[in-house]
Amino acid sequence: MDSCIFCRIVSGEAPAQVVYEDDELFAFEDRHPAAPVHILIIPRRHIVNLAEATPDDAALLGRMAVLAGEIARRQGIAESGFRLVTNSGRHGGQSVFHLHWHLLGGRHLGWPPG
Amino acid sequence: MDSCIFCRIVSGEAPAQVVYEDDELFAFEDRHPAAPVHILIIPRRHIVNLAEATPDDAALLGRMAVLAGEIARRQGIAESGFRLVTNSGRHGGQSVFHLHWHLLGGRHLGWPPG
Repeated sequence: MDSCIFCRIVSGEAPAQVVYEDDELFAFEDRHPAAPVHILIIPRRHIVNLAEATPDDAALLGRMAVLAGEIARRQGIAESGFRLVTNSGRHGGQSVFHLHWHLLGGRHLGWPPG
Repeated sequence: MDSCIFCRIVSGEAPAQVVYEDDELFAFEDRHPAAPVHILIIPRRHIVNLAEATPDDAALLGRMAVLAGEIARRQGIAESGFRLVTNSGRHGGQSVFHLHWHLLGGRHLGWPPG
């Protein structure tokens, strides 16, 4: 997936402000933040989006959700609150086709969510 | 958790348009839809939000994410696209303090997501 910008960030070929990494997951600051805290959480492995995820991905997806709460605590937004969002496909507004969660906080997030 | 509206929906004490249920998870239509398809996916077990989730909840959270994709397929929005959102705490705009994912589709979801 040489052309995938997130695969290139994971491999170190493209720069990013990394906030977390382990053998399966990677998190970094969004370059166009929509809130005071705006972090992207992705799997190292290239999964397109949630529409393409399978039951085999459940453990990985579960770790991503737990990590979102953990990063929220580290960023000091767990108490004040946050929103976690993933976009899948055209109507979702997905712009990079490597599964990612947006962790947003540091301000009130309005409703509807887009 | 007698006072929790989602616990009361899971137990059958409060009405809902149920779209999916199994021994761990439950999904039903949002009463105030923000999109043509707007479904809430919750665990039967009362977890407050992602800020309070622990690594012990990872398997359950993973199943919820996979189920979101599955429900998107059943609702006919997997191809056109969708957004999956969870709110945690005040800044997230959480209104019911029982962990839930909003599955939204059937229209373009704008950015930022709130």
